[in-house]
Amino acid sequence: MKELIKEFEEFEKEIYLLKNTSALLYFDKTTIMPEKSSNFRDEQMSYFALKEHQILTSKRFQELIEELSQKNTFSKLDNIIKNKVIVYKKKLKKIVCLPDEFVKEFEKIKGKSYNNWVLARENNDYNLFKEDLRKVVEFSIKKAKYINPKINPYDVLLDDYEEGMRVKDLKIMFSRLKEEVIEILSKIKKSSMYNHDNIFKGMIFKKDTQKEVLEDIFNMLIKGDNKKRFTWSQTIHPFMIRIEQNDVRICNAIKEDDPMFSFLGCSHECGHALYELSFPNEYSNSVLMDRSSLGMHESQSKFWENYVFLSKSFWSGYFEKYRNYFKDELKDIDLDSFYRNICKVKSSLIRVKADEITYILHIIIRFELELNLIEGNIGVDELPELWNKKLKKYLGIEPKNIKEGVLQDIHWSEGVFGYFPTYTLGSIYATMYDSKLKEVFVDYEDKIYNRELDDIIDWLKENISKYTNTKLTKDIIKKACSKEIDIECYINYLKNKYYELYNIED
Amino acid sequence: MKELIKEFEEFEKEIYLLKNTSALLYFDKTTIMPEKSSNFRDEQMSYFALKEHQILTSKRFQELIEELSQKNTFSKLDNIIKNKVIVYKKKLKKIVCLPDEFVKEFEKIKGKSYNNWVLARENNDYNLFKEDLRKVVEFSIKKAKYINPKINPYDVLLDDYEEGMRVKDLKIMFSRLKEEVIEILSKIKKSSMYNHDNIFKGMIFKKDTQKEVLEDIFNMLIKGDNKKRFTWSQTIHPFMIRIEQNDVRICNAIKEDDPMFSFLGCSHECGHALYELSFPNEYSNSVLMDRSSLGMHESQSKFWENYVFLSKSFWSGYFEKYRNYFKDELKDIDLDSFYRNICKVKSSLIRVKADEITYILHIIIRFELELNLIEGNIGVDELPELWNKKLKKYLGIEPKNIKEGVLQDIHWSEGVFGYFPTYTLGSIYATMYDSKLKEVFVDYEDKIYNRELDDIIDWLKENISKYTNTKLTKDIIKKACSKEIDIECYINYLKNKYYELYNIED
Repeated sequence: MKELIKEFEEFEKEIYLLKNTSALLYFDKTTIMPEKSSNFRDEQMSYFALKEHQILTSKRFQELIEELSQKNTFSKLDNIIKNKVIVYKKKLKKIVCLPDEFVKEFEKIKGKSYNNWVLARENNDYNLFKEDLRKVVEFSIKKAKYINPKINPYDVLLDDYEEGMRVKDLKIMFSRLKEEVIEILSKIKKSSMYNHDNIFKGMIFKKDTQKEVLEDIFNMLIKGDNKKRFTWSQTIHPFMIRIEQNDVRICNAIKEDDPMFSFLGCSHECGHALYELSFPNEYSNSVLMDRSSLGMHESQSKFWENYVFLSKSFWSGYFEKYRNYFKDELKDIDLDSFYRNICKVKSSLIRVKADEITYILHIIIRFELELNLIEGNIGVDELPELWNKKLKKYLGIEPKNIKEGVLQDIHWSEGVFGYFPTYTLGSIYATMYDSKLKEVFVDYEDKIYNRELDDIIDWLKENISKYTNTKLTKDIIKKACSKEIDIECYINYLKNKYYELYNIED
Repeated sequence: MKELIKEFEEFEKEIYLLKNTSALLYFDKTTIMPEKSSNFRDEQMSYFALKEHQILTSKRFQELIEELSQKNTFSKLDNIIKNKVIVYKKKLKKIVCLPDEFVKEFEKIKGKSYNNWVLARENNDYNLFKEDLRKVVEFSIKKAKYINPKINPYDVLLDDYEEGMRVKDLKIMFSRLKEEVIEILSKIKKSSMYNHDNIFKGMIFKKDTQKEVLEDIFNMLIKGDNKKRFTWSQTIHPFMIRIEQNDVRICNAIKEDDPMFSFLGCSHECGHALYELSFPNEYSNSVLMDRSSLGMHESQSKFWENYVFLSKSFWSGYFEKYRNYFKDELKDIDLDSFYRNICKVKSSLIRVKADEITYILHIIIRFELELNLIEGNIGVDELPELWNKKLKKYLGIEPKNIKEGVLQDIHWSEGVFGYFPTYTLGSIYATMYDSKLKEVFVDYEDKIYNRELDDIIDWLKENISKYTNTKLTKDIIKKACSKEIDIECYINYLKNKYYELYNIED
């Protein structure tokens, strides 16, 4: 058995070496690489992806997992190896059922579809992309059928991003949420405070000063040994990436006319980074060094972004210091109007620019449409019209063009269906931590006010992050928050916060 | 034959993919990677080095090269493939003769030796390193004997860095050079202008402004398409690296008390970069995409650094613009005293901080000592004493401690013998281009004065860079400069420049 384990560990080491190299190639491509090198880099990245795939699906590795899964052997393995075997079994099950020819063709289709999505956006013309999208939908359904022909194909696809979550759960949560959020939004729109001007208009927040502010965030969140395991760079699109367990990086963008873009973006990405920095050492560079689900990952970033760095407690404690960074710009602005301004709600067309309230409706629109596409209830021809209808109905606005409508997101063009719901799941989970932490620490709000966040970081590590992908998200949350996923908790949070901000009586 | 070539090209593609990945891993390690990740990164780098080595020395690849070398086949190959086969044959000849056991042991010895060199420097104690150095010397000689037992082992080692160059050539050039440079230095020391104060003393040259100055250099040297193939970052140790043909990077360091450190460092690294950016497209990511020799590479960087950006013509044209960047600091300084200051000669202990004149003597000391070590004429016990003696004799100074003496350079600790001479060879070659270019362009000095450098860039590309490693350095230079390597040309340049600067009559 020792031999078996040794062989397994050698395989795993190589798989992770290749995976981490791919991560670095991606990071470098996005941040530093000169543009002329992109063809070569794409080739290089395909090479490593293929190598990793070949090792993972090699006959010997499959046999190994099979041998280690045999009852007699499995029962004698230590817990870490047991978990590894379970995760690999699940992974392999989803991969090996796909015929090579199918995988190749789907890759090609997705490549073409992405390119034509870019083209269609540039030309503001859905027809340039429609047929590709039709193929991508068709192949996504086929893929789901290969993996498990017995269940709803959307459930199969969703499982890649939010393991264990099912359409029926989402439908219940999202229909309840939709109803409430539409009502909250309509009340906000009726409020006398709706549509107030952006008080930052015309101001310039210098990049170098914004960088100093970001250092404040790093100092609050990235502490001790983590400082030697973390780095950050500037880019256009913010993201977090782990190269390997001791190398977690975030990229952040700074806009001189919108200081909250870098501030909240940075707290968001730091949340993602903290999650990965908190994975247990003993899983080092193994298959267990991975998120439980995308919703779980998003709950970490959303927690820090919305529940800490966009909370009234935080700004009550930090505003004076912050105003000192931008003495000229903010000299006539008080905490109250500052806070209202950064929490403004307004219906808008673009998801990534949306506020906490309208963001939810953007997600629900996408969820409803993609579910219907994958269940075969609607076709790609009807998509733009349905998009616009829902936008009108839920948000009260209509896109002027297709670029600001159905073509705005990259996901579907790359064959990614079942990803959108995880953004809102992240918020739902994050509210549950916020609510639980109020019970755990009587001085929770004071901690945030005083920017003493270590206990909160530790709580998340001990109750959430340490389980990585060894447990399902819903089980981790149940244990951590002492209850099932609770949509009412989220609805209450939204009402409390925004009814107060907009002086609305419930 | 088509089949053979196809197979060969697939091998080569993989070798270059791995090589380029290693280059990126190294770049990232030196610039961005968080420090805690270094163990993993070292492992990752060994993995790729080993993979590359395994493919290169695989039975099938060796057979392929053998088959392609067969007279009948070889004669039918196109020129590019012919050259590739020749270069691989040479490479393999040097590798396959080394027993696996020997290679492994030598790697271990070098690793230990490097670590103990670091330790010895920290503790200022040669004894912590001496025994490792003894082993490294012993194994370097062994290696040379494996490769070619019939010739001087130093010639074998030198060939890796300066192919075709031999000890007898170096001895002739360097003894002539030593005699002349010692005389030049003694005359400079007798000059009334020797030992003048550094006029930059106490000034602060802001980093951001220095960066703007560097942009001037980039704008002069990196033009058109090359802008999309080049990038630069800031680090502690300046270097140039090619990730692949369309991805050439330099790293540069900025010191606020010494503006020439970044200025000349940047021109130096840009010279290296321009060489690699000028390699022909048709050699894309193949074994032909490589330098002819280290001396050749260094000649490109030295040419731009010393013959363009440290020339009187350049500063006569640029000084006013430069002074504008540092209005406060340089307001009372005229061109003449500025130029004398940046060309100051002074005996000093550390090679990398030395000026154009004393640098040569630093190299000759190292060459003489390493040659004697490898020829077995001296042992590591005597090294520190001999070092100090030579320093006293050639430069008139003595190190206060071993850290500033024989322990200052990394090279020997890593088993690198035969590298040092290439620094000075680079200067010798560069002077020959400078001298040739004066013939080729009657307005050569004007071009430099006006910072119109395109013709010079093109000349170097057409006459030097395009040959990459398909010709020996001496042959490239002979064709480009219409004469053999000419040490007198270098001596004349040094005399002309420094006798004028120090008002010395010849």
